[in-house]
Amino acid sequence: MKKVLLTGFEPFGGESVNPSWEAVKQLNGEVAEDVLIVSEMVPTAFGTSISVLKQLIQQHKPDVVICVGQAGGRLHITPERVAINLDDARIPDNEEKQPIDEAIVRNGPAAYWTSLPIKRMVEKMKESDIPASVSHTAGTFVCNHIFYGLMYYITSTSSDIRGGFIHIPYIPQQTLDKQAPSLSLETIVQGLRIAAVTAVQYKSDIRSVGGTFH
Amino acid sequence: MKKVLLTGFEPFGGESVNPSWEAVKQLNGEVAEDVLIVSEMVPTAFGTSISVLKQLIQQHKPDVVICVGQAGGRLHITPERVAINLDDARIPDNEEKQPIDEAIVRNGPAAYWTSLPIKRMVEKMKESDIPASVSHTAGTFVCNHIFYGLMYYITSTSSDIRGGFIHIPYIPQQTLDKQAPSLSLETIVQGLRIAAVTAVQYKSDIRSVGGTFH
Amino acid sequence: MKKVLLTGFEPFGGESVNPSWEAVKQLNGEVAEDVLIVSEMVPTAFGTSISVLKQLIQQHKPDVVICVGQAGGRLHITPERVAINLDDARIPDNEEKQPIDEAIVRNGPAAYWTSLPIKRMVEKMKESDIPASVSHTAGTFVCNHIFYGLMYYITSTSSDIRGGFIHIPYIPQQTLDKQAPSLSLETIVQGLRIAAVTAVQYKSDIRSVGGTFH
Amino acid sequence: MKKVLLTGFEPFGGESVNPSWEAVKQLNGEVAEDVLIVSEMVPTAFGTSISVLKQLIQQHKPDVVICVGQAGGRLHITPERVAINLDDARIPDNEEKQPIDEAIVRNGPAAYWTSLPIKRMVEKMKESDIPASVSHTAGTFVCNHIFYGLMYYITSTSSDIRGGFIHIPYIPQQTLDKQAPSLSLETIVQGLRIAAVTAVQYKSDIRSVGGTFH
Repeated sequence: MKKVLLTGFEPFGGESVNPSWEAVKQLNGEVAEDVLIVSEMVPTAFGTSISVLKQLIQQHKPDVVICVGQAGGRLHITPERVAINLDDARIPDNEEKQPIDEAIVRNGPAAYWTSLPIKRMVEKMKESDIPASVSHTAGTFVCNHIFYGLMYYITSTSSDIRGGFIHIPYIPQQTLDKQAPSLSLETIVQGLRIAAVTAVQYKSDIRSVGGTFH
Repeated sequence: MKKVLLTGFEPFGGESVNPSWEAVKQLNGEVAEDVLIVSEMVPTAFGTSISVLKQLIQQHKPDVVICVGQAGGRLHITPERVAINLDDARIPDNEEKQPIDEAIVRNGPAAYWTSLPIKRMVEKMKESDIPASVSHTAGTFVCNHIFYGLMYYITSTSSDIRGGFIHIPYIPQQTLDKQAPSLSLETIVQGLRIAAVTAVQYKSDIRSVGGTFH
Repeated sequence: MKKVLLTGFEPFGGESVNPSWEAVKQLNGEVAEDVLIVSEMVPTAFGTSISVLKQLIQQHKPDVVICVGQAGGRLHITPERVAINLDDARIPDNEEKQPIDEAIVRNGPAAYWTSLPIKRMVEKMKESDIPASVSHTAGTFVCNHIFYGLMYYITSTSSDIRGGFIHIPYIPQQTLDKQAPSLSLETIVQGLRIAAVTAVQYKSDIRSVGGTFH
Repeated sequence: MKKVLLTGFEPFGGESVNPSWEAVKQLNGEVAEDVLIVSEMVPTAFGTSISVLKQLIQQHKPDVVICVGQAGGRLHITPERVAINLDDARIPDNEEKQPIDEAIVRNGPAAYWTSLPIKRMVEKMKESDIPASVSHTAGTFVCNHIFYGLMYYITSTSSDIRGGFIHIPYIPQQTLDKQAPSLSLETIVQGLRIAAVTAVQYKSDIRSVGGTFH
């Protein structure tokens, strides 16, 4: 049986929940189509997030790692295409660090591509009526940080693990007093299950229309 | 036992489903807190919608009537405050009628207020983590038309029935290829159940902050 | 020569400028196509705004009155179709009054229609490449209040004056640290000039597509 | 005197104008703060855009090159931080080419950073009340393509030229029948003038808050 490690973040930025953790924790221990899902929480903190992630990888020895994070304001579940070598925080993280215009890995490459079949993951989610699309920016906060850190780790250790990142919208309870879109937790959980299984089952991606103008 | 009649519309405007009917049909026959919910479909057509609604009222003899319609692009479930005496259609309705700048009722009042406790309905939905807020425009298409027609009917027949209108967002399956927000069908069904029961149980509204700047 | 009175509001809600006053003051004293424009500021306050407006009408004896207000977040210049008999403030006004769910005029009609040719005004603005559309809600704050007060005054005094309200977007300087659209002050000034002259020149409106779904 | 080359694109995607060319052509030949601005149009076509750009660089021998493109739907003028080695077109370009998931430069680096002081450019524009912010994705259409091609050219030729890309919103005339934000052409021209001069005058950037969550 193949294993996929899903991570979700702690709440940050004044929110009392983080939908990424709320969603992935529901999938912990689930076996879907011969894929075992293991879920863990990681801190919303620049340095610590990567060191915790490395420990989790060594502990669980997954075939695929998918870090999941909140993208408040987005409409869709969005697998990310690319991680960039940049920390540029709008607010302090949960350990009060606020790096500005700093490389994540000194002399690291400017960017890493995901090694997940993101267009296939999007297609499978849409086949189940779940709003999904590819994103070309994971931002410059802890989400991009852990995504870059994950891909650097995989590359620099010549690991066979494949990895990537998925951003998810707010859940409804976070938008009661905000003018912002949401997707229900059930929809997000279903989408992540499909995405995780697809990521394990397929190493190559499909070639379909899914780019962005800007 | 009190009875509430919920109506949903046929699909229109190129959509294959109308979330208002998808949602209210799930509640048909349900008894919640000593309130019986009866659900019916009405045509998305200016003239016919009101005549069908009148027949349904005479058939079911409800205590409360709530018409429900799709507001594609809205973020929240939005009970409407006011219906205006105006048909002004951007597109033809499902019977190919496209009235422009016409009164719904000649010499009728410019507007009717809902007779439902809309702020209480919003409050109750939010207590269950459902995004909801009061709206001050039901537009000028068939949604506003049936809402005005309902309130005119109630007023002109001196009926004890109380009535109103609720707009709901798209459901996720409608937004797969749109940049638009949605709420899951489950969330909408739960919200409408709460709103319907609250509308029957309370004749008076609460006084809470819920206005709009524009 | 015909005369049109334009009013703009004081800043409110933490803004340092109000684009409605910034725009209308630039038109004060201008003569365009045989129409004299007179501009005045009114307070962003429920009670005072209408009493000040009445004094200005008696002082200037205009043929047409157009009150202008900020609609932060809107994309277009939006002549309003209808004023409703409701004060429902999200925040205190500039005199610390915050009416909630109160009638503007006790026993007044639920709503008044504008007496301006709003679709013609929209058409003329669009012919000059200015984003404009009809709106069907002026909200429930001071903008709707003065609009309703104006139409009540005209009606109850059997005046020949025609009146209405136009909402305008933010100007760019207000959006430097907001995720919100704006139109430049020059565009708004040009749009209001066109709208004001059109409002004076035409008593009847055109019949064109311009309704809203919700 | 230093020289900056600004490029704008041909219209595409059904638009009759491209605001990038409308804006940059107004700056052609202008001297601002001892900086000469030269403006040229480039085709909205994957392959051709870069070859035309190279010819223009060899012809004009600029100190700084800034390519400008339309980002319909954006609120701000957005200097781009990073170009990625990916063509992924949602629609065919103006030469009917629609590459999907193809590298721009085979074996090229995944990404290049801009060599312009983008935070300083944003700061200077905001000081003049122009809505501006840093962007971390230039998309995957011709805008990103020419940006990557520019940075690859500069790097592979060991040129001293500094280069980058700026996305701009629609202008108002494009949004008459769209629900989309715009900035006036005057505002965009003023913003690009400030950005161009700042880009020439400063080689190093400031360290200020300007990252994105996602």
